[in-house]
Amino acid sequence: MSASPAGSEIERLIGLLAKLPGLGPRSARRAALALVKKREQLLLPLSDALAQAGDKIKPCSNCGNIDVNDPCHICSAPGRDNTVICVVQEVGDLWAMERAAAFRGRYHVLGGCLSALDGIRPEDLNIANLIDRAGATEVSEVILAMNATVDGQTTAHYITDHLQSSNVKISRLAHGVPVGGELDYLDDGTISAAMHSRRPF
Amino acid sequence: MSASPAGSEIERLIGLLAKLPGLGPRSARRAALALVKKREQLLLPLSDALAQAGDKIKPCSNCGNIDVNDPCHICSAPGRDNTVICVVQEVGDLWAMERAAAFRGRYHVLGGCLSALDGIRPEDLNIANLIDRAGATEVSEVILAMNATVDGQTTAHYITDHLQSSNVKISRLAHGVPVGGELDYLDDGTISAAMHSRRPF
Repeated sequence: MSASPAGSEIERLIGLLAKLPGLGPRSARRAALALVKKREQLLLPLSDALAQAGDKIKPCSNCGNIDVNDPCHICSAPGRDNTVICVVQEVGDLWAMERAAAFRGRYHVLGGCLSALDGIRPEDLNIANLIDRAGATEVSEVILAMNATVDGQTTAHYITDHLQSSNVKISRLAHGVPVGGELDYLDDGTISAAMHSRRPF
Repeated sequence: MSASPAGSEIERLIGLLAKLPGLGPRSARRAALALVKKREQLLLPLSDALAQAGDKIKPCSNCGNIDVNDPCHICSAPGRDNTVICVVQEVGDLWAMERAAAFRGRYHVLGGCLSALDGIRPEDLNIANLIDRAGATEVSEVILAMNATVDGQTTAHYITDHLQSSNVKISRLAHGVPVGGELDYLDDGTISAAMHSRRPF
C-alpha cells in the first residue's frame, strides 16, 4: 500500500522534500501535507521563491559565495579590507562569519573539504582560484577557517602546502573553550588545545 | 547584519522554508543552501513538483482527502465498504490508517479539531458534510478516530451529539497499551484505560 494515497504528484513532492537536510521521510510527509493544506500562503509562494532563486542566485566567480550579482556583494563592497582572505568550506560558514561580524576582509568559499571517504579531491574544490587570488600583490594574509574536523584540517594543510610559494601569512582560527561552554562537557582535545594556547589574564 | 547575505531572493526562500513543520530558522537556512547548491537535482525539480502539486492536488469534495481527482480515489474505489465512515482529523491520519491497512470503508477528514485556544469552531471544520453523509441510508456506522487529546475528544463528543438524530452506530478507537509498549513507560490514563477495557485471553 502506498504511503501517500494522493497520486504520484504528492509522492514526488515528498521524495524531493525528504532530500532536504533535516527532513526525513516522515517529516517530509508532514511538510508536504502542510504545503497542500496552505496552498495560497505557502505552497505557491514557495514554488515561486524556488523558481526565482534558481533563476537569479548564482555563485560568485571570484570567491564562490552565492548572490544575485557576480561578483557578489562582499567581493564588490568598497569598504572591506583587500589584504586579508578568509577561507571557509561552505557558504553557510561565510554567513555564520558575517553574523559574528568579526571579519571585514574578503572571503573565499571552497565548496566543501577534501574527503577520501566521499571521494572529494582538490580539483573538486575551489582551490586553484584561491591560489591565484592569494598570489595578488595586495593580499598579505590568508585565514583558514575550515571546520575543526579531520577533513577540514586535512584541507587546511593541503592549502597551506600550496600557498608556500606565494608570500602570504597563513593563519587559522584559534581552538579553545567556546564562549558559554562548561569544561565538564568539553572533549579532551578542546581542553588541551585551550590549555596549550592559554593567554595572560 | 543580515543573516544571509545573498539578497532578498534567498531571504524569502528561507522565510518560507522556516514555515514548514519540523524546520526552524536554522534548518531552513541549511535547506536553502542545499537547494541552491543542488540547483539541477533538487531546487528546480522541487519548484516544479510544488507547482504541479498546487495545480493538480485538491481536496475531495466528498470526504476532504486530497487527491488529483475529485472524488478522491478512496471515495471512488469500488471495492470498499460504503456502510462505515471513519472520521479522522487530518489527511496525514488517513494516510496512517491506510498504512496500517486495518480499515476498508470510507473516510471523512475534518481538517483539524475543535480548539478554544486556537479559535477553531465547528463551522471551520468539515462537520456539516459529515452529518449529511452519515444520514445516507447505506451508512450504518461512524468510527471516530480523532487523536486521544483533549481537543480530539471534545471534537468526538461534539460530533456524537450531532449524529444522535441519524440512526447510525457511533464507535471510537480502543485505548490501551501500544503494541511493543512497556507498562513502566506508560502514563496512568493509558494504563487505567487498558485495565478498564481488558479482554478475555
